[in-house]
Amino acid sequence: MANFDLMRRLHTTDNPARIVMLVMDGLGGLPREPGGRTELETARTPNLDSLCARGSSGLSYPVAPGITPGSGPAHLALFGYDPVRFDIGRGVLEALGIDFPMTDRDVAARGNFCSLDPAGNVTDRRAGRIDTETCIRLCAELSRGVRIPGVELFVEPVKEHRFVLVLRGDGLEDTLTETDPLVTGKPPLAIAPEAPSAARSAELMNEFVAQAQRILADHLPANGVLLRGFAKHPSLPGMTELYGLTCAAVAVYPMYRGLARLVGMNKVTFEGETPADEFRAAAAHWDQYDFFFIHVKKTDSYGEDGNFDAKVGVIESVDQALPILLEKQPDVLVVTGDHSTPATMMTHSWHGVPTVIASKWARFDGLTEYGESACLRGGLGHFPAEHLMPMAMAHARRLNKYGA
Amino acid sequence: MANFDLMRRLHTTDNPARIVMLVMDGLGGLPREPGGRTELETARTPNLDSLCARGSSGLSYPVAPGITPGSGPAHLALFGYDPVRFDIGRGVLEALGIDFPMTDRDVAARGNFCSLDPAGNVTDRRAGRIDTETCIRLCAELSRGVRIPGVELFVEPVKEHRFVLVLRGDGLEDTLTETDPLVTGKPPLAIAPEAPSAARSAELMNEFVAQAQRILADHLPANGVLLRGFAKHPSLPGMTELYGLTCAAVAVYPMYRGLARLVGMNKVTFEGETPADEFRAAAAHWDQYDFFFIHVKKTDSYGEDGNFDAKVGVIESVDQALPILLEKQPDVLVVTGDHSTPATMMTHSWHGVPTVIASKWARFDGLTEYGESACLRGGLGHFPAEHLMPMAMAHARRLNKYGA
Repeated sequence: MANFDLMRRLHTTDNPARIVMLVMDGLGGLPREPGGRTELETARTPNLDSLCARGSSGLSYPVAPGITPGSGPAHLALFGYDPVRFDIGRGVLEALGIDFPMTDRDVAARGNFCSLDPAGNVTDRRAGRIDTETCIRLCAELSRGVRIPGVELFVEPVKEHRFVLVLRGDGLEDTLTETDPLVTGKPPLAIAPEAPSAARSAELMNEFVAQAQRILADHLPANGVLLRGFAKHPSLPGMTELYGLTCAAVAVYPMYRGLARLVGMNKVTFEGETPADEFRAAAAHWDQYDFFFIHVKKTDSYGEDGNFDAKVGVIESVDQALPILLEKQPDVLVVTGDHSTPATMMTHSWHGVPTVIASKWARFDGLTEYGESACLRGGLGHFPAEHLMPMAMAHARRLNKYGA
Repeated sequence: MANFDLMRRLHTTDNPARIVMLVMDGLGGLPREPGGRTELETARTPNLDSLCARGSSGLSYPVAPGITPGSGPAHLALFGYDPVRFDIGRGVLEALGIDFPMTDRDVAARGNFCSLDPAGNVTDRRAGRIDTETCIRLCAELSRGVRIPGVELFVEPVKEHRFVLVLRGDGLEDTLTETDPLVTGKPPLAIAPEAPSAARSAELMNEFVAQAQRILADHLPANGVLLRGFAKHPSLPGMTELYGLTCAAVAVYPMYRGLARLVGMNKVTFEGETPADEFRAAAAHWDQYDFFFIHVKKTDSYGEDGNFDAKVGVIESVDQALPILLEKQPDVLVVTGDHSTPATMMTHSWHGVPTVIASKWARFDGLTEYGESACLRGGLGHFPAEHLMPMAMAHARRLNKYGA
């Protein structure tokens, strides 16, 4: 909160300095054996290393010591929002990721098409990963077919077996249990209210599931639905209000664009999906924005796959493309990750994230390599990720002095 | 707050250990080029270096990451007070700096004499920096001439064009807008209340300005006044209550003595204004106090001037005079700054401040040099300046154990 108050009070727009925050998802890693090198330390990264040589480095902690974050809280922290105070449901992220314009009267859920056997037990939680076209067709059928008195209803396709369900109406609540049994061989669970005031919302959601199941009966493998992550749209102050920055998001994956939209960023549309494509997209919109959030997803994907070498490769491709950004001479270039995803763990982790702030006003800390061991001794120290935006703002000289 | 509660509960006066906090204003710096040395690292400081060799070092952060503090919040943090919770207005600092005894019924403002053209527009916001004697004479005229029913009024000279205005009365508030247009060619702004309850205070202040302008009409270049930093006296617990210390302030500049007075320190009067003069003043009152705050201003002044070499020179003069203090064998000697003022930036900054605690009980951290890069790796780590007093108290063994 102090963060918010100080940023609101102290930011200035007199200075046109531009800030780029380059986030390699799941960047932090672990060595394959004690004393070895992490993915980042293995990668050949001359451009990132030279950022460290003229910047201040450190290790950022997304939520709190020992806490492994999901993508939502990890990104909120990077944007300067307390990730414990602002708890964003998966349903909202999915809805924002497909550009669905949520309102305050909506409850969104993440939906999966699934396969059910004649007894009603789940045989495949992802309906054999049906193709996206089938998903689109089935969503249209559900949108047409399901009717629930008193609420508007939206069934929006995402990708493959995934869709978003939004109920819009008065007094809807999101404190609802999920239907995914998480294993096959069991039926979907009924939705229960977690608070008495959510009873009607639970009824309406169960009614949706019942009608959807009837409509989908003949559409094996997609003859059932699972609903998770019920969530209302949280009310977050926008980054323009907090920081006085006009902000752009450059991201290939919908959820990250959705997260960025939640804090008031505009999305940049572009062709391609490599880091070079993303950097070119930022460069192409350079004069329109003060702040660019650039999200590279594959570091995390390969980390989750346990593919150490492929994660190294993505980091190297970021490094190779970096001159596209450097040519634009951002006043402040922050390189970080939202969390660690060590390939050896095949999942998100709590480990500190190597972070560098390169700027004319960074205090030299003697480091010349971008890696976990180097950042451990950097000038930024070990810090909550929530502090990164105030630091970036300071290095951009976009903050006035506090007090006389 | 945890700070306060623990300090109140745990401090002991059984131990007569003496603490000296030597503050070089704006001490922290930046190198002139990447990889170069800061002001402090350039200075030859054998005595300060040897403090590091027998002490623990670190980098302190005055308010919060990325926040550049003014002198008020920066010093409050050094004295152990939360600088965001206790927001001290410039008017109060100025009043305390001239030893004006403020009461709870007072609102103080920082005043400038200014020059107005016949149309009432400001032509010089500092009235050509009139000499202090003229300031004293004009303040006396205003004190005699301005009459506002229901309030007592004090117009006290500070230095050159600066004065302090204090209105004393019941129900006065300080949530008022300032009159300084900040540029020349515009008239002074009317004072407006920022809350409805401050409406009467705004009226009274505007009445002061109107009467003052009439009295000053013939005194060009000082024919107008500007008022800024309206502030009531904040209610701070004293350092004696918190820490059980009798405290002395040794400072050349009024504002820093004022700050010290705000937390219950006594000022030490002395001749001269060099670091050596200040150290001799502390030594001369050695047996009267448990705690000495010694403030060296010129490091900041030269930093703001962009005079790297002169800042280096002030640091060296502190080092050369240090034996005067060392001879008195303080049990704990803290050397720090209130914030950074890199000469390359010519203004306060957010960068961490090199800090050392020298004491028999400091844990050796292997550092033998007092400088930003060394302190980065010091035993105190990177810490909020607010934690410095509890650390000093601990090293003085003036804190009892917490809990059984």
